Amino acid sequence: MRLALCQFNPTVGDLAGNVATILAYARRAAEAEADLAIFTELCVTGYPPQDLLDRSAFIRDVETAVAHLAAEAPEGLGLLIGAPVRNEDGTGKRLYNAALLIDGDEVVDAAYKTLLPTYDVFDEYRYFEPCPDRRVVSFRGLRLGLHICEDMWNNEEQAPYHLYAANPIDELAALGIDLFVNISASPFALGKPEERTLLIQGSCREHGVPFVYVNQVGANTELIFDGDSRVHDTDGTILWRARLFEEAFHVWDMDDVAPPAAPVARPPAPIAQIHDALVLGIRDYVEKTGAGVFEKTLVGLSGGIDSAVTCALAVEALGPERVVGITMPSKYSSAGSVSDSETLAANLGIDFHDISIRPAVDAFGQMLAPLFAGTEEGIAEENIQARARGVTLMAVSNKFGYLLLTTGNKSEMAVGYATLYGDMSGGLAVLSDVFKTQVYALARYINERAGHALIPENTITKPPSAELKPGQVDQDSLPPYAVLDQILLHYVEEHLGMDAIVGLTRYDRALVERVARMVDRNEYKRRQAAPGLRVSPKAFGVGRRVPIVMQRTRVAEPEVTPAAEAPDV
Amino acid sequence: MRLALCQFNPTVGDLAGNVATILAYARRAAEAEADLAIFTELCVTGYPPQDLLDRSAFIRDVETAVAHLAAEAPEGLGLLIGAPVRNEDGTGKRLYNAALLIDGDEVVDAAYKTLLPTYDVFDEYRYFEPCPDRRVVSFRGLRLGLHICEDMWNNEEQAPYHLYAANPIDELAALGIDLFVNISASPFALGKPEERTLLIQGSCREHGVPFVYVNQVGANTELIFDGDSRVHDTDGTILWRARLFEEAFHVWDMDDVAPPAAPVARPPAPIAQIHDALVLGIRDYVEKTGAGVFEKTLVGLSGGIDSAVTCALAVEALGPERVVGITMPSKYSSAGSVSDSETLAANLGIDFHDISIRPAVDAFGQMLAPLFAGTEEGIAEENIQARARGVTLMAVSNKFGYLLLTTGNKSEMAVGYATLYGDMSGGLAVLSDVFKTQVYALARYINERAGHALIPENTITKPPSAELKPGQVDQDSLPPYAVLDQILLHYVEEHLGMDAIVGLTRYDRALVERVARMVDRNEYKRRQAAPGLRVSPKAFGVGRRVPIVMQRTRVAEPEVTPAAEAPDV
Repeated sequence: MRLALCQFNPTVGDLAGNVATILAYARRAAEAEADLAIFTELCVTGYPPQDLLDRSAFIRDVETAVAHLAAEAPEGLGLLIGAPVRNEDGTGKRLYNAALLIDGDEVVDAAYKTLLPTYDVFDEYRYFEPCPDRRVVSFRGLRLGLHICEDMWNNEEQAPYHLYAANPIDELAALGIDLFVNISASPFALGKPEERTLLIQGSCREHGVPFVYVNQVGANTELIFDGDSRVHDTDGTILWRARLFEEAFHVWDMDDVAPPAAPVARPPAPIAQIHDALVLGIRDYVEKTGAGVFEKTLVGLSGGIDSAVTCALAVEALGPERVVGITMPSKYSSAGSVSDSETLAANLGIDFHDISIRPAVDAFGQMLAPLFAGTEEGIAEENIQARARGVTLMAVSNKFGYLLLTTGNKSEMAVGYATLYGDMSGGLAVLSDVFKTQVYALARYINERAGHALIPENTITKPPSAELKPGQVDQDSLPPYAVLDQILLHYVEEHLGMDAIVGLTRYDRALVERVARMVDRNEYKRRQAAPGLRVSPKAFGVGRRVPIVMQRTRVAEPEVTPAAEAPDV
Repeated sequence: MRLALCQFNPTVGDLAGNVATILAYARRAAEAEADLAIFTELCVTGYPPQDLLDRSAFIRDVETAVAHLAAEAPEGLGLLIGAPVRNEDGTGKRLYNAALLIDGDEVVDAAYKTLLPTYDVFDEYRYFEPCPDRRVVSFRGLRLGLHICEDMWNNEEQAPYHLYAANPIDELAALGIDLFVNISASPFALGKPEERTLLIQGSCREHGVPFVYVNQVGANTELIFDGDSRVHDTDGTILWRARLFEEAFHVWDMDDVAPPAAPVARPPAPIAQIHDALVLGIRDYVEKTGAGVFEKTLVGLSGGIDSAVTCALAVEALGPERVVGITMPSKYSSAGSVSDSETLAANLGIDFHDISIRPAVDAFGQMLAPLFAGTEEGIAEENIQARARGVTLMAVSNKFGYLLLTTGNKSEMAVGYATLYGDMSGGLAVLSDVFKTQVYALARYINERAGHALIPENTITKPPSAELKPGQVDQDSLPPYAVLDQILLHYVEEHLGMDAIVGLTRYDRALVERVARMVDRNEYKRRQAAPGLRVSPKAFGVGRRVPIVMQRTRVAEPEVTPAAEAPDV
């Protein structure tokens, strides 16, 4: 039996495009004499289809697309695809998240997803009814332990906590199977590839069954899928592994007992994974929005490291001819902010413009002078500068159809060190899930790859500054980034409380509380932020839902202490 | 047995404040010689607590707050409160959404929520494990059919579709109960009060059991809770009903067989409900953000109906001394846009400023002239004007600590007839769930209430215009609002497909498709919009999750037709 693994990059909602790609891979599989071509979770719709699933016309179009796939599949080839199907019971959610087996012009069998992730960026129980039972799907005598994405993540031994009562892996194994097949749409986060390896190896070893894992690749708005499809042998050995962040195709002959001819791809270093993820995220945002919508991307260059890294990533994603940089000096801008930007643009080979914002800033000053008379200069005036830049960039974006990229990093977005409608203007936030300390590492990695200082050394070494008032540096208002990032990691990504963070870091409690307050108070800014590319297990945006209007500083007086201090969940 | 219904307005996360209010109501109940004071779903945390529930420190604080409530409750009074409690099983979601019965200084019993709404604005399965079984909670011999919010919405007869297999109402009735008690955090949408009446009356009649319903009131960010608490008799008759959109307290003596002394409150007309909801939404956003954060609200007055209605609602919410209006004419503004705004401000008695945006628009024109040389004036230049207004308003907001209200209505937000970072700037979108045709009705209602033309007649009668180029009116780019709103209702609120909308409206298919495309293409703008007050069953924002990057115009070729045309779900 020959299985073709098809790690392809679907576009959400693009039924015609996805079906065409699936059929192209199917023809390739047929040419390679495969018996079964295996695709990814919800590959017909692309993942995540979100509330498109609530539209009955969309579901009808999906049914048409699946029928089309069945009719057009190469003769003699089975297809395993992912698509939503209706729950016809009259009770429960209206859809199942299904793996459909197509053979001989029709859908001959199906497995429905049991474990529906409903946390972080996942909302599957919003749409899908969980499958109540497990059964074997047979393909030409081969007994498949067919399951979908999350279904493999509740395994007894590996999972640190059991979010679900069902354990599809164990239940399928108990039914007697020849092979686990998992079709996934599992988004990238740092550390995820290694987690998958441990999980799959554990399942193979526990049950003595080989494992085929086929995962979506590509970015859809904020979610980036790394692929990382594999074949694991009965003892857990990786027989084949796809390169991350690109489409891949592999035929595995189950009867071939020789050791793998091709070397197994190994994931690159963590900083390279972040780099590759962001490049893919930019490219797919632009390309999948539709041909001709965004001719180019646009970046406001401040001379600082965030805009430089954003710009360099955009060039890698789209090429220098599709990236435009604009420097917009004010009277507070250092000479370096322009010259470093100029050097960067020259190094990258991109179009570069210099537009002073002084006329606009002066005009707003004059317009507001009567109302602001007698007040001291402060945040309002600083923000006018950032917003004059935002208006300038958006005017260029609107005029020429360029996608404006925002450059704020995760540390700044966390504490609100950014101007709403100013530097936060733009359609895609490239670095909003990358801490400032990681941005430095990215800059160094980019220069290392280039073999020279693509990003000017001065941009990397000078103290970070918003340059919105004379002599301003970030550390006037913020703790050092190494300190800040550590607190943010514990608070934002790990949900730890003040006691726990102080205990872990030994930082001053007042500092930790101040940072937490800044995070909570700036929820309103983040709610209006551009969607940001997700590379960590907890990014701002769709996967983090915190009330804007709330009071979290006041707690009820502990006149009565609860029985026991529970551990952090 | 005397039951006190406490319809109060909690603030999300404000454990100390909510506990203090609960105790104040408890004392009032004790003074009225009640036996049991009944509060609302998750009243300790306020609803919706969202991802605060993921923070273990928050859950510990909740436990402290509940212990405090038990210790401080008036002697002899039972309390029925809502709070998250830990799931100690080691499997499943880590929390239950619980109704806790406090009696004699301790939590003596609890009921957990069975049906966890996970659709629209609700994400309960994100946090909570559903309760697997139903049981009676007894309070001093009274057998309570105690359940939580959604638990009553799956009833056999009334529910049009059964989203869940369990039916807590029937299951509790089968156990033999004296009284249904539902504690809710059920947000307002037009039509919801009537739905509740039908549902509760049906349950009473089916089982011959009276019904006490206690629902949260007040707004938390975008969600507005109307309260609408009631007591229904065994035959469904409403014995008491709270006035909508305000706190309420009522003691029901179960043994009192006399007909109700006080007349039953009836909900006002639909347009009045929308009015009252929005006023509450504005007030609570400002008040709950914290004392002193927003001294005043700020509205950019265009002379048009949206800004006039927004401003009038803000004045009703906060009083004229806490609302500031600014008119910002450009060279394309009609004389009426300033004079109508001036009249409105005088009528409302608010502070009013006139700041011409011409200096800023000229400055941007000059700055961009080299880059824009040889291009025609268009959207880019129009947006510069809207953004110059946005920068001006945000400068005033930042300088004086005013909350900027955005004024865009649902029709405009749907089709993207708004400028990102321009007129979309602001912290709260007052009308973003109100169609343009409803905005007119609101204006007339406001004037009717005032007994005179508080909103200038000219503002209501003139053709709507963005005034961003000479002679521009909305109907240059959009179909008439009566037509547009009907298409949007079917597409956005009812998820209907093109065939269904054309069938229902008999509008030209090309027009319907054009509107749908505009809706889909402007998702990126709405993602960055201010949170908007929700008054319909389907608002933009947290309850509508549509991909930004997608292709929905292409469907797979229907070479094969599915077996049957399924009805719209």
